[in-house]
Amino acid sequence: MSEVDSADMGPWLSPDDFAFVSRKVPLVYVDVVPVRTDEHGAVVAIGMMLNATKNGIMRAFPSGRVLYHERVRDALYRHIEKDLGPMALPQMPHTVTPFTVGEYFPTPSAAWYDERHHAVSLAFIVPMQGECNPGSDSLEFTWFTPAEAATAALQCELSEAHASLLRQALAHLGHC
Amino acid sequence: MSEVDSADMGPWLSPDDFAFVSRKVPLVYVDVVPVRTDEHGAVVAIGMMLNATKNGIMRAFPSGRVLYHERVRDALYRHIEKDLGPMALPQMPHTVTPFTVGEYFPTPSAAWYDERHHAVSLAFIVPMQGECNPGSDSLEFTWFTPAEAATAALQCELSEAHASLLRQALAHLGHC
Amino acid sequence: MSEVDSADMGPWLSPDDFAFVSRKVPLVYVDVVPVRTDEHGAVVAIGMMLNATKNGIMRAFPSGRVLYHERVRDALYRHIEKDLGPMALPQMPHTVTPFTVGEYFPTPSAAWYDERHHAVSLAFIVPMQGECNPGSDSLEFTWFTPAEAATAALQCELSEAHASLLRQALAHLGHC
Amino acid sequence: MSEVDSADMGPWLSPDDFAFVSRKVPLVYVDVVPVRTDEHGAVVAIGMMLNATKNGIMRAFPSGRVLYHERVRDALYRHIEKDLGPMALPQMPHTVTPFTVGEYFPTPSAAWYDERHHAVSLAFIVPMQGECNPGSDSLEFTWFTPAEAATAALQCELSEAHASLLRQALAHLGHC
Repeated sequence: MSEVDSADMGPWLSPDDFAFVSRKVPLVYVDVVPVRTDEHGAVVAIGMMLNATKNGIMRAFPSGRVLYHERVRDALYRHIEKDLGPMALPQMPHTVTPFTVGEYFPTPSAAWYDERHHAVSLAFIVPMQGECNPGSDSLEFTWFTPAEAATAALQCELSEAHASLLRQALAHLGHC
Repeated sequence: MSEVDSADMGPWLSPDDFAFVSRKVPLVYVDVVPVRTDEHGAVVAIGMMLNATKNGIMRAFPSGRVLYHERVRDALYRHIEKDLGPMALPQMPHTVTPFTVGEYFPTPSAAWYDERHHAVSLAFIVPMQGECNPGSDSLEFTWFTPAEAATAALQCELSEAHASLLRQALAHLGHC
Repeated sequence: MSEVDSADMGPWLSPDDFAFVSRKVPLVYVDVVPVRTDEHGAVVAIGMMLNATKNGIMRAFPSGRVLYHERVRDALYRHIEKDLGPMALPQMPHTVTPFTVGEYFPTPSAAWYDERHHAVSLAFIVPMQGECNPGSDSLEFTWFTPAEAATAALQCELSEAHASLLRQALAHLGHC
Repeated sequence: MSEVDSADMGPWLSPDDFAFVSRKVPLVYVDVVPVRTDEHGAVVAIGMMLNATKNGIMRAFPSGRVLYHERVRDALYRHIEKDLGPMALPQMPHTVTPFTVGEYFPTPSAAWYDERHHAVSLAFIVPMQGECNPGSDSLEFTWFTPAEAATAALQCELSEAHASLLRQALAHLGHC
C-alpha cells in the first residue's frame, strides 16, 4: 500500500478526520496485481512499482482505499490510473468479487502488517494492455516474469503483505 | 442487515463516534446466507430471520460490521452466534474470499440501499449443522426450500439488498 | 452447446470413435458467456448466437469440447474464434478456474439436459473488445442489455442449460 | 492421483475400453485436499495419504475420475469415502465450482504430468470432521501443519502435480 497522499484525502477527509477514523474502524481497500497476458490469457509478466518510503526503497503493488460513496470498481480504476497512468488500459474485472481478501493490521505480529491502520482489502489481478507509467509517488514501474516474481530475492523488496499477495496471485494463476 | 445494536457498539464505539465514522468512510460488513446441505453437499434449505424493524416486519440474513482489530472470520463467527445462537454449529468457510461482494449505499436509487451508511459487505454461504435459534432481535428463524426461496413472494419480504443477495446465492448454488 | 461439427472431430476423432467415447465417459467442455463491458468493467451487454438446430431456431452461447492434449485455455480460445470470428478480440481469463461448472446429462429429467452426451463444462464470462461475427453454424450474433437478458421471453429462446447458465452469469455479475 | 483401481473400472468400463478412451479424450477428474479447521474455519492441518506406487512410496491427495452419468459431487464423495474411509465425515462443498482446475498431460514436459492420460481435474479443499482411515491402496494417512506442508522436504514426497496442488491450496487458504 502506498502512503495515503493528500489527493486521496483532500476534498474528502481532513488529516485529523482520517486519523480519527483510522483508529475506529477497518478501512476498505483495494489491491491490484498488474499483469501482462498472452493472446490466450496466460500470464507472462507481473508488474510492480518502486517507491521511496520512509522505510527505504520498496517495491509495491497499486493499492488504496475506497472512498465514502465510491463504488469498489471506481476505486479500483482510480487507483490504477493514479499509480500506473492514464495509458495503462486495464482490463477491468467484470465482477467485484476479489481473487483474495487481505487483512492489514496495525499489529507488528500480524501477517499483513500495516502500521497505519486496519484495512480489509479486496485484491484483483488486472491485465494491462497499454503502457504503465508510474505516478509521481513512484520511481519506476517494472515487469517481471512469473519465474522472477517467484524468487525470494524479489519478494524481499516488497512489504510482507505484498510479498504474500504476490505469492497468492502466482498460485491463483497456476504458477507454483 | 439488522439494526446495529448497542452490544455492537457498546465497548467499541460510542453512538456519536459511530455516526461520525459512518458519514466519512465505507464500513466493512459481512453477510451470511445460512443453508442446510445433504450428505453430498447439495443445498436443501436456506434460512432467514424474521425481524421487527421500523419499516415493519422483514426477513433478513445475519449481517453486521467487522470491528476495529477484528479478523473477518471472527466477525463472521460472532454475527452467526449473535443472530443464530450458540447451537447453530456453522461450517465456517476455510477462506475469507467471499462468494460475492455487496455494496450498500445510503442513496435511494442504489441497488443495495441502506439508509444508515455505505458498507462493503463480504458475503458467505454457510452450512449450519445444528439448531438455529434467533437472538433477541428476531421473532423467528425459518428454513425454506430453494424452490420456495426462488419465489417473488418470499423475496418481497426481504430488503432489496438481501433479496438480491438471496438470488445471487441461489445462482451460485446452481439453483436457477 | 452447438452441434459437434465435423471440423471438431475431423482430424481428431472419427464419428464412430466419438460416439463410442460419448457413451463411456463424461466429456470436458467449455461454455462462454460473451459480454461487453464499460471502461470500469461493468457489464453493459451479453451476446448470444442464433442457431438453426434440429429442434428449431435457438439462441446459444459458444460452447464445445476440450480435445485430447489441448489445454483448457486453448480450447476456450478456439471455440470463441470458431463461433465469434477472428475479430472478436476476447479478453481471455487469466485463470482457468471457471465462474461456474455445468453438468450436462443425457437424461431428460436432468436440469442441464443434453441428449448427445454427459459433459462437465467449465464456464467463463469473457469480455469481447472487437466485432463478433458468427461462424457458418450461426444465423446471427446479437447483443442484449442485462435487463433484456433477464427476461423470461429471451431465456425461452435458449436451451434449459444455457438459460440456467445465463441466469448464473447475470447473478455473478451482480445483475439480479 | 492414485492408480486407477479395478473397482473404479469394474462394473463401468473394461480395461481395454478405458485404455481406448484414455487415448481419445481428456478425462474428468476430481482432486481433494483434506484439511482440519478450527472453530472459526482457519485451517490447522492438511492431510495426505502415503501410497506404494510403481515409482516408489509417494504421498498423494485423494483423487479419481468422474464416471459416466455421475455428478461431480457424487464422484467427490465417492473418492473421499474410498480413500479416507466412511468415518471421515467430510464437509462437502456446497458448490461444484472448484478452487482451482488442474490439467494433467501424458507429456513429460508438462507441469502436471501423468503418464497415464490427459485429465482435467476439479480441485476442492474439504474439511474433514471425523477420522480418516486410508483405504487398502494406502499405507497411512497423515496430518501436517500448514508450516510443515509448506516445506520443500514434504513437497518432494508428492508428485509434481500434487505438490503444485498443495502450494495452490496453501496460497488459497492464505498460508503463503
